[in-house]
Amino acid sequence: MSAVDQPSGLPARTPTPQPGDPRLARLSLNQRTTAEWSLAEAVDGCVRAGVPSIGVWREPVAEVGLDKAVRLVADAGLRVSSVCRGGFFTGPPSTARAAHDENLRALDETAALGAPVLVLVPGGLPEGDRDLAGARGRAAEAVAALVPEARARGVRLGIEPMHPIYAADRGVVSTLAQALDIAEDHPADVVGVVVDTFHLWWEPGVLEQVARAGERIASYQLADWITPLPPDALLSRGMVGDGHVDFASFTAAVAATGYAGDVEVEIFNADLWAAPGDEVVATLARRYTELVEPHLA
Amino acid sequence: MSAVDQPSGLPARTPTPQPGDPRLARLSLNQRTTAEWSLAEAVDGCVRAGVPSIGVWREPVAEVGLDKAVRLVADAGLRVSSVCRGGFFTGPPSTARAAHDENLRALDETAALGAPVLVLVPGGLPEGDRDLAGARGRAAEAVAALVPEARARGVRLGIEPMHPIYAADRGVVSTLAQALDIAEDHPADVVGVVVDTFHLWWEPGVLEQVARAGERIASYQLADWITPLPPDALLSRGMVGDGHVDFASFTAAVAATGYAGDVEVEIFNADLWAAPGDEVVATLARRYTELVEPHLA
Repeated sequence: MSAVDQPSGLPARTPTPQPGDPRLARLSLNQRTTAEWSLAEAVDGCVRAGVPSIGVWREPVAEVGLDKAVRLVADAGLRVSSVCRGGFFTGPPSTARAAHDENLRALDETAALGAPVLVLVPGGLPEGDRDLAGARGRAAEAVAALVPEARARGVRLGIEPMHPIYAADRGVVSTLAQALDIAEDHPADVVGVVVDTFHLWWEPGVLEQVARAGERIASYQLADWITPLPPDALLSRGMVGDGHVDFASFTAAVAATGYAGDVEVEIFNADLWAAPGDEVVATLARRYTELVEPHLA
Repeated sequence: MSAVDQPSGLPARTPTPQPGDPRLARLSLNQRTTAEWSLAEAVDGCVRAGVPSIGVWREPVAEVGLDKAVRLVADAGLRVSSVCRGGFFTGPPSTARAAHDENLRALDETAALGAPVLVLVPGGLPEGDRDLAGARGRAAEAVAALVPEARARGVRLGIEPMHPIYAADRGVVSTLAQALDIAEDHPADVVGVVVDTFHLWWEPGVLEQVARAGERIASYQLADWITPLPPDALLSRGMVGDGHVDFASFTAAVAATGYAGDVEVEIFNADLWAAPGDEVVATLARRYTELVEPHLA
């Protein structure tokens, strides 16, 4: 099924919501969803589609420079829902200082952009290292070291548990339960968690873990799990509604915690990247208003 | 790294163990590791390599017929360590009876082959169904319905938790903890669990879950998690030692439960399937004696 078709189980295609539609009030475009767009293009695309918020990545911000990036989003009247990404602090102990310093720069950028949260992707196993528990321990220590720095900047750290498909090479924190075990050692206003449907939909008891997360939910992100899984594991996320995720129950559980922040659509998918950005944004806005927004109330 | 190279962190290549080597006493070749071989060829390959046990699949058994399959393995003096596979009982309720009956046939075959365990692969979500909790519930009910049938045949059911990469389309039971939650409703001699390193290596607290499993471990199976993940998710398992799994600690935890059964190498991998079967068996025997067998004591 292509991203512009209707997902199974949906009624006949509904109209694309237009700019100003109140149902779009909390929608955010994570800019990796339209990876071919520069930051300026993504900002313009959000404005054209009436998407009021954007999740930015550090690399495209660096391309234009932080000051200009801040102006771009401010002049467009957009919110920045999150900055991706800090983390990657599970390397050998000799790399811990450099990783910490890189995360300080990421925190500075997050503060400058006025984003509420820096998304932390923990990182994977060092080359040749098979000590997963050790890497998980280093992730927890690195978060702890960033707590005073984040508080000083008024930025929240968002630990992102990642699907176990990425445990070896990208994110050693594999469940929401595990992310909360780490986060709960710290104040909730400084250390939260990122709840991403793609990463977490399979977790046994995940809705109970969402309830446990409560006010720690720092970001709610959407992508679907599609089968057959695309050949590149990194680009295996599907458009909301194309796959197996039950967005209704997941979203209702997030809403029940009182989460009032933006809802980011973050999809890494080669087919979407090859499609015109405006079409992708129109599709995700439609899917969001059909499948997600009604359950946020 | 190819399957015939040394994995990182190993000493210089050690000799391939020869038939009669006591270190091979518990090694089993799951015949999907050498998928190009017929059952007769796999039996011959085990004998040539001195592998005393084989894990069989129902399809290649059916190709020669059950009676002949029983004679093939008996005449060769091999044990059958497991039969793959029963399960696939998460379809819509209307399919439950047919799935149950198919599992009865699988139990009959397992008994005839003298294998201690029928491996249960639970199955995925029905087409268009997004109720993962519901599918998990049906899996638990289907196991319960098989308990008297398994007991009557002297066969153990082995619930196989599968990596979350397969939660949508193959196995809705995603963690050892979850498999044990289902199994513990039944006597341990009738309902056990299959502990497969590929599926479980990432699970937070997995070694504690292995200890919890105790006498419920019905089969211990080996494959590695390799990166980058091969493009076909179903064929993404790696040769023991080629990837990120810590076989030493995993195996020691299994051994600490008192598990005394065979240790099956089950690897679905297109590169291995394209290699000569005897080479694959020689490599896995060497890797097993280097990385696994020393930790079984």
